[in-house]
Amino acid sequence: MPSIKDAAAVVGVATTGFSTDSGRTEYSLAAECIKAALDDAGLRPEDVDGIVKDVVDGIDAMYIQKAVGIDNLTYASDSRYGTLPLLNAVTAVAAGIANTVVYYRSANNASGKRAGSDFRAAKETKDESLDMIRYDFHAPFGLLTPDGAIGMAVRRYLHEFEVSAEQVGWVPVVCSEHAAKNPQAIFHDAPITLADYIDSDVVVDPLRVLDCAPDVDGAIAIVVTRAERAVDLSQPPAFVMANAQGTSTEGEQLSSYSRPQMSGLPEMGLLGDELYRVAGIGPNDISVAQLDDRFAPLVPMQLEALGFCERGEGAAFCEGGDALRVGGRLALNTNGGFLGEGFSYGTNIIEAVRQIRGTSSNQVSDAEVVLVASGAGGPADGCILRR
Amino acid sequence: MPSIKDAAAVVGVATTGFSTDSGRTEYSLAAECIKAALDDAGLRPEDVDGIVKDVVDGIDAMYIQKAVGIDNLTYASDSRYGTLPLLNAVTAVAAGIANTVVYYRSANNASGKRAGSDFRAAKETKDESLDMIRYDFHAPFGLLTPDGAIGMAVRRYLHEFEVSAEQVGWVPVVCSEHAAKNPQAIFHDAPITLADYIDSDVVVDPLRVLDCAPDVDGAIAIVVTRAERAVDLSQPPAFVMANAQGTSTEGEQLSSYSRPQMSGLPEMGLLGDELYRVAGIGPNDISVAQLDDRFAPLVPMQLEALGFCERGEGAAFCEGGDALRVGGRLALNTNGGFLGEGFSYGTNIIEAVRQIRGTSSNQVSDAEVVLVASGAGGPADGCILRR
Repeated sequence: MPSIKDAAAVVGVATTGFSTDSGRTEYSLAAECIKAALDDAGLRPEDVDGIVKDVVDGIDAMYIQKAVGIDNLTYASDSRYGTLPLLNAVTAVAAGIANTVVYYRSANNASGKRAGSDFRAAKETKDESLDMIRYDFHAPFGLLTPDGAIGMAVRRYLHEFEVSAEQVGWVPVVCSEHAAKNPQAIFHDAPITLADYIDSDVVVDPLRVLDCAPDVDGAIAIVVTRAERAVDLSQPPAFVMANAQGTSTEGEQLSSYSRPQMSGLPEMGLLGDELYRVAGIGPNDISVAQLDDRFAPLVPMQLEALGFCERGEGAAFCEGGDALRVGGRLALNTNGGFLGEGFSYGTNIIEAVRQIRGTSSNQVSDAEVVLVASGAGGPADGCILRR
Repeated sequence: MPSIKDAAAVVGVATTGFSTDSGRTEYSLAAECIKAALDDAGLRPEDVDGIVKDVVDGIDAMYIQKAVGIDNLTYASDSRYGTLPLLNAVTAVAAGIANTVVYYRSANNASGKRAGSDFRAAKETKDESLDMIRYDFHAPFGLLTPDGAIGMAVRRYLHEFEVSAEQVGWVPVVCSEHAAKNPQAIFHDAPITLADYIDSDVVVDPLRVLDCAPDVDGAIAIVVTRAERAVDLSQPPAFVMANAQGTSTEGEQLSSYSRPQMSGLPEMGLLGDELYRVAGIGPNDISVAQLDDRFAPLVPMQLEALGFCERGEGAAFCEGGDALRVGGRLALNTNGGFLGEGFSYGTNIIEAVRQIRGTSSNQVSDAEVVLVASGAGGPADGCILRR
């Protein structure tokens, strides 16, 4: 059977940095960022023959082509959820339908209207489908936002495994420590303590303000090319050992309430199984990970699903924070994660690349391989990168 | 360099048939159709590990999983434009990230609201991006619909190559002859004459009513699996010799007015080059094609771009219709095309599969290979299937 293992590598990365008000268009942010990622790789716009993005983020690839000066493409695809565009880029390169693919994301989610946030408008544009019916089962009871939807599952997890807020709080604390040293993080130089966490307002019980990654303005760009080409470029390549996606039975986006058990992340379990199968390594081989901390309690749930600890042991793993710090069992979100750098899918891949290159603000000395997981609470996707 | 050539095959196909008022939900149509395509292939829902679709058509893959009884997926991707989901399916199979992928489309575009038709709602949901600015350059002058946008380019083509309505009219005439014998076509048993075409009302000059494929209600489903698995299933496989996409400089969706020349389809040219390169054959090896006849004048333009005739000779190729009929130089849209069966991307692939299997209502006796092209006037994609 064919495999994508080591067929592609990430060779260029860039972000614009993040803010709560960029004062610029998503078009301008995207173009600047793509140019910077190509410069980082030592590639020119004319080397690009593929573009991928998430369908909700930023403008059409056709307009970006024009802005950046990319002439013709043999592959351009939108996709949905997490960092799935990376999988499309890697797959396109591995299958030989494109040589060099740019993955970009550009969104003014803090100063502008959050992509996908307008349920009413969504209903108006899709009134012939049943997509929106799911909301009718819980929206009337107040679950109108992502934190509301995921709060239900988190409450069940806390109850089922007797997890305390004090245990969960170590995730934002450690992320804030990492963000404090990352100049691009929105919470640069502003570490929090466990007391700050406990004192922060409850948004939707049991989620506190400091459990929730802030929406930000900014762009990311990632350049993927064939492994044999990667070794001749400007930067040490981050080879893609494995890249996969997982969706599971009775799954919904943040509200999979129809399952027999709603305290787990079966999509992440599937993702982990597939990543380890393709890469030929296991969780014990991994000491740095970028997990999805859009909501902090999803981190202990991911640690369990991805095999870093036993079911129900995720909170104990996080307690005290030492296991999650640089030099600990599993250095977590060394850029500060979405909680510290701002909620933008793609930054997790970029930080993994920095670890592989040895240029992270919170560098792990023996970072040979890094695991990245996105999409906790919905369709999951992720990759394992190696030096 | 890796190649997708002959790595995958289409092994199951189904449509619900098409109407102007299905009286059913897109969810129900999709579920029925996917089940029928799996039955056609001799596969069960639990064999499926990938789902692809166009982002504007039908409901989320997550809900379809539930309806059809598909448990877990390692690949699920939306994409945009034409039949691009097929490329994602084929690429996923070729790269080994999924074994069996279902591509579905389900839309009540006739009785419901046409997907993507509501510019105002689109502006409200994406007001922070520049996507919609393109419309500000021509919408105030009356180009508010797809036929309006493409009419400008068609007018220039007719002028530049001195093409007459009588020449273009042979495309809808031949398509209607083919549709007349296809029981699933919306224009079954209702062939038109050239006089009917000339007499039909002008919608947007120079486009007549009979130049425009009608929106319809209905669903399609297509099952793709690895080539080595395909040979053990219920139907003769249609192997994917090549599958590609093309986007080009200064490209827009139906309104690429910023180019030095707007009378051509450079995306289709790129697509053809790539298809022939990967398949290792040329236009002279092909005697059946499913071209994009959403608007009839795009057919002679495609014949030129795909190398079936010289630039400016497309209309002469179509004149009289004989070259386009079964047994002619290039049997065209043997299901009736979008003009005759109804406008639904995916039906073009399904008819190509019927030709490969030898089950078309307008069967070409020596149909060894069939070319399919979608997305005329915007990002193009297509494939070459073989017996």
